[in-house]
Amino acid sequence: MPSLPQKPGDAPDAKRSRVGLPALDVATAFPQATPASIFPPSVSDYYQLDDLLSSEEKNIRKKVREIMEKEIAPIMAEYWEKAEFPFHVIPTLAALSVAGGTIKGYGCPGLSITGSAIATAEIARVDASCSTFILVHSSLGMLTIALCGSELQKQKYLPSLAQLTTIACWALTEPDYGSDASSLRTTATKVEGGWLLDGQKRWIGNSTFADILIIFARNTSTNQINGYIVKKDAPGLKATKIENKIGLRMVQNGDILLKKVFVPDEDRLPGVNSFQDTSKVLAVSRVMVAWQPIGIAMGVYDMCHRYLQERKQFSAPLAAFQLNQEKLVRMLGNIQAMLLVGWRLCKLYESGKMTPGQASMGKAWISLKARETVSLGRELMGGNGILADFLVAKAFCDLEPIYTYEGTYDINSLVTGREITGIASFKPAILSKASRL
Amino acid sequence: MPSLPQKPGDAPDAKRSRVGLPALDVATAFPQATPASIFPPSVSDYYQLDDLLSSEEKNIRKKVREIMEKEIAPIMAEYWEKAEFPFHVIPTLAALSVAGGTIKGYGCPGLSITGSAIATAEIARVDASCSTFILVHSSLGMLTIALCGSELQKQKYLPSLAQLTTIACWALTEPDYGSDASSLRTTATKVEGGWLLDGQKRWIGNSTFADILIIFARNTSTNQINGYIVKKDAPGLKATKIENKIGLRMVQNGDILLKKVFVPDEDRLPGVNSFQDTSKVLAVSRVMVAWQPIGIAMGVYDMCHRYLQERKQFSAPLAAFQLNQEKLVRMLGNIQAMLLVGWRLCKLYESGKMTPGQASMGKAWISLKARETVSLGRELMGGNGILADFLVAKAFCDLEPIYTYEGTYDINSLVTGREITGIASFKPAILSKASRL
Amino acid sequence: MPSLPQKPGDAPDAKRSRVGLPALDVATAFPQATPASIFPPSVSDYYQLDDLLSSEEKNIRKKVREIMEKEIAPIMAEYWEKAEFPFHVIPTLAALSVAGGTIKGYGCPGLSITGSAIATAEIARVDASCSTFILVHSSLGMLTIALCGSELQKQKYLPSLAQLTTIACWALTEPDYGSDASSLRTTATKVEGGWLLDGQKRWIGNSTFADILIIFARNTSTNQINGYIVKKDAPGLKATKIENKIGLRMVQNGDILLKKVFVPDEDRLPGVNSFQDTSKVLAVSRVMVAWQPIGIAMGVYDMCHRYLQERKQFSAPLAAFQLNQEKLVRMLGNIQAMLLVGWRLCKLYESGKMTPGQASMGKAWISLKARETVSLGRELMGGNGILADFLVAKAFCDLEPIYTYEGTYDINSLVTGREITGIASFKPAILSKASRL
Amino acid sequence: MPSLPQKPGDAPDAKRSRVGLPALDVATAFPQATPASIFPPSVSDYYQLDDLLSSEEKNIRKKVREIMEKEIAPIMAEYWEKAEFPFHVIPTLAALSVAGGTIKGYGCPGLSITGSAIATAEIARVDASCSTFILVHSSLGMLTIALCGSELQKQKYLPSLAQLTTIACWALTEPDYGSDASSLRTTATKVEGGWLLDGQKRWIGNSTFADILIIFARNTSTNQINGYIVKKDAPGLKATKIENKIGLRMVQNGDILLKKVFVPDEDRLPGVNSFQDTSKVLAVSRVMVAWQPIGIAMGVYDMCHRYLQERKQFSAPLAAFQLNQEKLVRMLGNIQAMLLVGWRLCKLYESGKMTPGQASMGKAWISLKARETVSLGRELMGGNGILADFLVAKAFCDLEPIYTYEGTYDINSLVTGREITGIASFKPAILSKASRL
Repeated sequence: MPSLPQKPGDAPDAKRSRVGLPALDVATAFPQATPASIFPPSVSDYYQLDDLLSSEEKNIRKKVREIMEKEIAPIMAEYWEKAEFPFHVIPTLAALSVAGGTIKGYGCPGLSITGSAIATAEIARVDASCSTFILVHSSLGMLTIALCGSELQKQKYLPSLAQLTTIACWALTEPDYGSDASSLRTTATKVEGGWLLDGQKRWIGNSTFADILIIFARNTSTNQINGYIVKKDAPGLKATKIENKIGLRMVQNGDILLKKVFVPDEDRLPGVNSFQDTSKVLAVSRVMVAWQPIGIAMGVYDMCHRYLQERKQFSAPLAAFQLNQEKLVRMLGNIQAMLLVGWRLCKLYESGKMTPGQASMGKAWISLKARETVSLGRELMGGNGILADFLVAKAFCDLEPIYTYEGTYDINSLVTGREITGIASFKPAILSKASRL
Repeated sequence: MPSLPQKPGDAPDAKRSRVGLPALDVATAFPQATPASIFPPSVSDYYQLDDLLSSEEKNIRKKVREIMEKEIAPIMAEYWEKAEFPFHVIPTLAALSVAGGTIKGYGCPGLSITGSAIATAEIARVDASCSTFILVHSSLGMLTIALCGSELQKQKYLPSLAQLTTIACWALTEPDYGSDASSLRTTATKVEGGWLLDGQKRWIGNSTFADILIIFARNTSTNQINGYIVKKDAPGLKATKIENKIGLRMVQNGDILLKKVFVPDEDRLPGVNSFQDTSKVLAVSRVMVAWQPIGIAMGVYDMCHRYLQERKQFSAPLAAFQLNQEKLVRMLGNIQAMLLVGWRLCKLYESGKMTPGQASMGKAWISLKARETVSLGRELMGGNGILADFLVAKAFCDLEPIYTYEGTYDINSLVTGREITGIASFKPAILSKASRL
Repeated sequence: MPSLPQKPGDAPDAKRSRVGLPALDVATAFPQATPASIFPPSVSDYYQLDDLLSSEEKNIRKKVREIMEKEIAPIMAEYWEKAEFPFHVIPTLAALSVAGGTIKGYGCPGLSITGSAIATAEIARVDASCSTFILVHSSLGMLTIALCGSELQKQKYLPSLAQLTTIACWALTEPDYGSDASSLRTTATKVEGGWLLDGQKRWIGNSTFADILIIFARNTSTNQINGYIVKKDAPGLKATKIENKIGLRMVQNGDILLKKVFVPDEDRLPGVNSFQDTSKVLAVSRVMVAWQPIGIAMGVYDMCHRYLQERKQFSAPLAAFQLNQEKLVRMLGNIQAMLLVGWRLCKLYESGKMTPGQASMGKAWISLKARETVSLGRELMGGNGILADFLVAKAFCDLEPIYTYEGTYDINSLVTGREITGIASFKPAILSKASRL
Repeated sequence: MPSLPQKPGDAPDAKRSRVGLPALDVATAFPQATPASIFPPSVSDYYQLDDLLSSEEKNIRKKVREIMEKEIAPIMAEYWEKAEFPFHVIPTLAALSVAGGTIKGYGCPGLSITGSAIATAEIARVDASCSTFILVHSSLGMLTIALCGSELQKQKYLPSLAQLTTIACWALTEPDYGSDASSLRTTATKVEGGWLLDGQKRWIGNSTFADILIIFARNTSTNQINGYIVKKDAPGLKATKIENKIGLRMVQNGDILLKKVFVPDEDRLPGVNSFQDTSKVLAVSRVMVAWQPIGIAMGVYDMCHRYLQERKQFSAPLAAFQLNQEKLVRMLGNIQAMLLVGWRLCKLYESGKMTPGQASMGKAWISLKARETVSLGRELMGGNGILADFLVAKAFCDLEPIYTYEGTYDINSLVTGREITGIASFKPAILSKASRL
């Protein structure tokens, strides 16, 4: 009997030489059902949301869907597994013409918020990591420049960002401050000709390679939050990848370390003078984030719908089983509701009436239903539901960070709760154990 | 020690003479929170569905809401408890001007389907029993005459039905055939000048007092389903109340016995020549039924919203507790989604595109979410959540028959499942125990 | 056309004379399935919990089951509907020999806590109202005398209470203090030869007819909670029934008003000197209450199991449908888990190691699972799931007050949460709207 | 502005040279909470299941826990991320002395089934992949030899398998036959001196490196299922790794291709003469599999319990928030129930009374509750809930394949459903679209 290797990394070569071989392509190993590299047709718009869209919105939807299905679907399982960003597809993503979203001018597409939301969903339908990449870059990074930047900053940065020839990230969260982000401690100290930034950021998407980093820091004079545009090669700046993620594995989230990073005065964002100034940006990004779970759920439904027809057990397609039909219909019902809630949120925004509580509830409710929906989809796919090749496993994992970012489900619920009751309940009252209950 | 009474009905008078007394009015016994007899304000339209309504639809909404809050709220707990229909409020319900719904002419209001749906919800928001009373009478009874009746029948019956001076019911379900209604066995045999009806019906709302009963029966010559207008005093007709219901307790559901009931030729509905002919009626009524849970959930939310602000424990209003806020927000999110799904269903119907699967999914999904919503509301109300006086307990119970009627959740799911997969899965394949699994 | 009655109570006699008739017995109206008056066999002990019981515990289980099925099942739907307590069955309940539960001597059965719990479940399996009646009387009322009373009080009161020839109730909750019961405000003021009690109690089960009422009040000298035995005919005592309940409708919950009610010194319970002294009683009663949902769920399962075999649709018994089988199995799984959790709780108690957190979690978790279980059962029963005659509708409603009493689900969760984290989180910290989130 | 790389694999080196750097260790990047490499203490046995274990069972529990925490916890995140099996820890796993489980003699530990189950849970608590590795090897591979092998086969294979110096796998599932495994099509054709095996297997754990493969094939003469011991170097045998899994990433599942693989007569398992003969093995392995989710859930709870105390937001430990406490308590309640259900299943097995339906329900119910439990844990961990370093993310993913393997939740439910109703409902009856519903 062969002895087994006993040191780390010491692969059992003897064994492997006999039976170990390169993995088969899944389409070869399992021809019974089509993997997601050949993306399933879109069949989730059961209540014809399309009727509520303008021609322009329908066109952007169609265009994004086609490109994503054709160009991204074939490569996503591989990059997701490797947890690497597919840099070579950046031009493809640029061709979607969605970066910049609702920004008008400066080479940006100037979409309606509904159009931008629909595009977000169509990207996420095929691959949520790509969607988050764009969202961080566009709805957080670019939008902050557009809403809080000077005219000069807009002219300087937005055009190349719109073309994805430069990439942005957006750094608010810190290791100590997640849900409680407004308490952040990174500091900005005024010095001759500029500012020195010191502190730490965590979870910052795109930050390991972004050309420009929007950094929020506390002005040491005013004690208020300010915003800065930091270049990737600024001395004192370090960004390292966060590894071992289960979801959005292509997205490169980073830990950022800032040690006396000098930012010239011209790169301070004049429109950020307090934490409240981030709210205009977050209002839009929260709407966009709410459309990611919609897209994810649509892709999962489409995949399940095809799979149930292709895959047979007990001599019948899985689609013929009562238990499967009920799950599929529940998913479809959820998706119609998510689409309509997301659509209505856009309309409220467009009418200028959207409140923070409405946005928070939209994000929270939609991601809750999406979580249920992808979980049902995961079940429908059986064993193939744990392989990224069949989309649903990947989508199941990708939803988890989204459920948590831009306000966890609980925090968003409490934001809305405060609005509808007039009472904030975020903080706990720590009581002694002597309570009589 | 006193001996206790030992015969049924033998109340312990000695005991009662000391401590037993007429119940206090709940407003006296529990002044800490306002009961539903003073109905809470409507605060559930968080995403402003009203913006999507026409002026006419908004007006009917407002009118129905006002009348229901003012006239029905004060008496509903009493009649619900007694399981009696409040005949004296029929003129009030007539004043809503909703009976006849979408029917044009013949004294009917000719509402849009959206308007009719909104009215249904507003009635159900205050009292679901009243809503079911109207729905059976109008969306089943009157609509069958309007869609399948002769011109003469319409002129003869619709005007007084529209004014609620005569009341209709609609009898399809039989003891043996609920989900499988199309297999019904009541027979209609042709005789000189008319037909003889024989058979049994069950669960027929309003049937114990309705002036006219729409009865479906199998034509013994063609073996197809036909429809008949039967008068309440027809010899051989008997209708007895089904007792011990936990929900919709004001609604009088009946067992109908038909023994050689003669129906003259003029009272046969010429438009019902097969089971399929009921589908036009059911298409509308299923949409209406889908709006009942919406209304119920809205009322529950409104009640909880007020209650959480009024009721204090641990020196704080219940609205200040995290666990309560999350529940309230989840309810509100569900309601926005339900409203939008219901609204979209109406629009699909109005555009002539609504499929049976879409209607079934709407009813199933909305009632599923309503069930979750009222259950959360039940929890929020604590002990008062089991008293009909505070609405939520009543609503919690009223939802149950609605979850089941017009197709149970499961049956409606499978109707949609068949449409989206092309495979019917209603019937089971009974296999031998010898299966190898 | 007949005119409709327009005054309250003005029944439409003309109408009724034609079609209105006494209701049919359900067994006649719906012979397709057997109602619960003929109680279904017990088939829920799938994992053979019986093997874990002593002979004595098995015997009490068998005895209680037989009497309940035979004597109570036939009358429960009627009394539940009428919301009256069936005084004539008190001798039957006495024959169960369970009142007094674990109390030894004084004519009490001296059961093990497991035996007493099993008996509670078997009563609740058939009728939860009877179970609550016994529980209030025995595990709250009698047990307080046994644990906190003087030897004289025990000798005086326990024997006739054990035989149910006198009935007890137990009054802690007040209109202002439910979850926060320890803050109660009823006062006890020392006077010559006794005490004067002033205040209000609410929700007190059995209180409208109980012979003795255990009343908790705040001693105006010490500001601590004391306990008193009050006779039903004490001047100044008034107890009125709470009406319009949706669950446990046979149980007579009362509002108690105490106006200078004199209690002689001999009727003060010497063992109650602070709120903490109620904890020994509540430890037992919380275990007992945890077994009520177990019993309810068992009865619901048994009923569904029989019904699914008897009731046919689409030419097959409902038991043959995938969707129904999955629900039935989920119910059965829940019940095994509930039984085992309840059993383990008893064993922890018997070993003297049970903590308040363990008891609270047991009650909370079991009632949560029971709520899911009866809700599934409700669905399985279709339309008959809303009739008390078929047990499940009644059980569905009866569970709701139990989910809330003896600590709501949330409060019990937080009691356990405090124990396992060391941090009390009952009270909210009300913050200003200025929070930055 | 730098141009971005445009070919696959063409990493943006210029960018990376500036800000890209090796990832920080999570303990450095996020010192706010301890990662799972330093495993949290076991605090989930709230109801003291330990009291129900024998000394031997307690000892094996303690031993396995210590080794897993100390040796496996520090390396698991890395290997899981790489989707590689850590061959160098095989001696550590051998030191657990659990391989062979309940088998007596042949160098096997001869544990009680309860002891073996507890050990399974303790392994899975730290790392589910290791648990599956052992389970496939021991409860499927070794047990098949022990129960269906000849005396000679037992003597030849079991001792080195018990020491993990040789590794086994077990191959039943085929690409076409998952839930419907008994229909498998791999063939075994009798030839001179042995058999020729032809066919395909899929999902076979350990198969890419196992020394011996237990292969099930259909005897071409009898059309019955037979079993064979195949060596890893048998000509015609090929096993390739299935990639892109989201869960149990260390486990090497393979596609096996068999092309005229010769198996000598002595390697046919004499005790496998039909599919039914696998049932003795599956009875045990299903119990073992049921304990994996228990272990996973325990680890998740332990991790969350520590994390909530360490991690602060809004100046308070997360453990102080109502919403978090309720989730934690719900998890703990689920775990007590899962433990007790698992324990009872073992006792039923040990008493010789366990039925297939009981085993299936145990596996289905426990994995359902575990899914809910880890999902709650995922939420409690916030952003760190998506990093394998903090265990919960990994556990969340690992549960998914377990929810599906050894019978999906649905299939196991229907197995039990058949047992309790007497009606098999696995197969659907495909009906025409002409159904009247």
